[in-house]
Amino acid sequence: MSEFEFITRITKRLSRTANERRDARGEVAEKAPPDFVDIGPGDDAAVVRAPGGRVVATSDLLIEGRHFRRDWSGPYDVGRKAAAQNLADVVAMGARPTALLIGFGVPLETEPEWAERLYDGLRDECDLVGAAVAGGDVVRAPMVILAVTALGDLAGRAPLLRSGARPGDVVAVRGRLGFAAAAVGLLSRGRDAPAVLLDAHRRPRPPYAAGEEAARLGATALIDVSDGLVQDLGHIAAASGVSIDIDAAALPIAAELGAEGRTFVLTGGDDHAFAGTFPRETALPQTWRAIGHVVAGEGVTIDGRPHGLTGWDHFRQ
Amino acid sequence: MSEFEFITRITKRLSRTANERRDARGEVAEKAPPDFVDIGPGDDAAVVRAPGGRVVATSDLLIEGRHFRRDWSGPYDVGRKAAAQNLADVVAMGARPTALLIGFGVPLETEPEWAERLYDGLRDECDLVGAAVAGGDVVRAPMVILAVTALGDLAGRAPLLRSGARPGDVVAVRGRLGFAAAAVGLLSRGRDAPAVLLDAHRRPRPPYAAGEEAARLGATALIDVSDGLVQDLGHIAAASGVSIDIDAAALPIAAELGAEGRTFVLTGGDDHAFAGTFPRETALPQTWRAIGHVVAGEGVTIDGRPHGLTGWDHFRQ
Repeated sequence: MSEFEFITRITKRLSRTANERRDARGEVAEKAPPDFVDIGPGDDAAVVRAPGGRVVATSDLLIEGRHFRRDWSGPYDVGRKAAAQNLADVVAMGARPTALLIGFGVPLETEPEWAERLYDGLRDECDLVGAAVAGGDVVRAPMVILAVTALGDLAGRAPLLRSGARPGDVVAVRGRLGFAAAAVGLLSRGRDAPAVLLDAHRRPRPPYAAGEEAARLGATALIDVSDGLVQDLGHIAAASGVSIDIDAAALPIAAELGAEGRTFVLTGGDDHAFAGTFPRETALPQTWRAIGHVVAGEGVTIDGRPHGLTGWDHFRQ
Repeated sequence: MSEFEFITRITKRLSRTANERRDARGEVAEKAPPDFVDIGPGDDAAVVRAPGGRVVATSDLLIEGRHFRRDWSGPYDVGRKAAAQNLADVVAMGARPTALLIGFGVPLETEPEWAERLYDGLRDECDLVGAAVAGGDVVRAPMVILAVTALGDLAGRAPLLRSGARPGDVVAVRGRLGFAAAAVGLLSRGRDAPAVLLDAHRRPRPPYAAGEEAARLGATALIDVSDGLVQDLGHIAAASGVSIDIDAAALPIAAELGAEGRTFVLTGGDDHAFAGTFPRETALPQTWRAIGHVVAGEGVTIDGRPHGLTGWDHFRQ
């Protein structure tokens, strides 16, 4: 199969989002471009609307064996997750995702069907937020490689940075914590993981509404929890020149996480919850859970004490 | 060296463009953000200006041993070339490049100095067009991997697509053709290549002004010549539903290309020249060379006859 045949085949998987709207029976109801993609795959570059006059852009490089395992996750879930983690980064800036670009490295022996299911996953995750795969590149590679770039629009708002937290702010999270890490903890010891954990590992469900909601609520900082809560709050603390104190009793530690639940919640990434800081007087809706507060100083403490926990280092692990 | 230490080190190489302006002696003259990057590396995502209300976006995945060889090119040239080929794709839409995102896969044994030189190359190529590296991702990988995304702005103009060529249009090229392919032809046979060819292979010099110039001249289609002139004109022909006839006598075949010059010019990529179609009455400046014309039909011919040439297939070669 040549490059062009392969690209044609996987590009077709994107057409539901890129070119068609389907009715409830799956029939093509209308041909319409997605909201933001003016020029999709097939030219020298894509053209994506940026109505706010600025574009939010982020990219991740995912390598088989390091960031995903084909024996732990099927292609559809790899696609969903690869899209999710980049869409979540756009949302963490307070923006609405508009498009993905996908660089896809394909081993010679890869079945076209495997690639098609991967692109189905990318497309379906994009559909959750009204974004679409707008372009990319397909090359031969020694292992599966996914280079995902996500774009987003701020609708004229200021971005929610890591650097805006101020002493007195409330720290709150929205989304699940520790589920994916608990699954990996079990799988890497060769043990079965309960379905709820396995699902969380294979297909994170970032609460995508969190970004625009946090912006509306007046958040002073926002981050996607991908390296672990303590480490990611540490990024906010460092960027803002403040300290963050976590209230251990307020942490959402789900029973499903088992005996090590507290550690998974504090150090596990990959659930793509969002952590933000809000002015003290903010009336937080129930979707957000207050777990601590911002104080003068530096670093992250738990109940006022040093935590001694280490987070995720993509180089060492 | 941890991920954060490594990222801090390479991010510093970007600071000349991202944060500082230097005077003639290399001293920091002023701290200023680059023209288009509002938020650069260090947050969940970058924020890049898109004053035209749309963003042009393209990405390439480059894998060591396949797209570059560390024994043929040093890190600085790998960086220059990786940036150039993506900036050229933005220019081929008639847009001005604004920013790059870099996904960088790093083998464990890679010297930090090698990575720094790579980022120097990325930065310096961006400087040629007023763009900057706005963000990205660094991960451990079994070989060097570069995932490059380039963004650009159309300043409110319509993009120059592959699909706009019309019978009667003149076909013209701007930039060198065949130089990089001639170098690879010699190197892959274990022979020395003259400096002018070697330089062309290591560090393409796309004529970046070509995109906005073509737009001003009223080009009906534009493409970055990366797969070979015949194949890339074939993309315009297919997308536009027309045929393109090349006038063999008009081809710019440089003497340095040697006995196989004609083949290198017709099938060699990687010089990142631009090929466009223009209404017949266009007064082309000397920077553009007319090499053929658009006729009704399909495919690409040379002097009215089928060419029998094959172009570059990234999967097969």
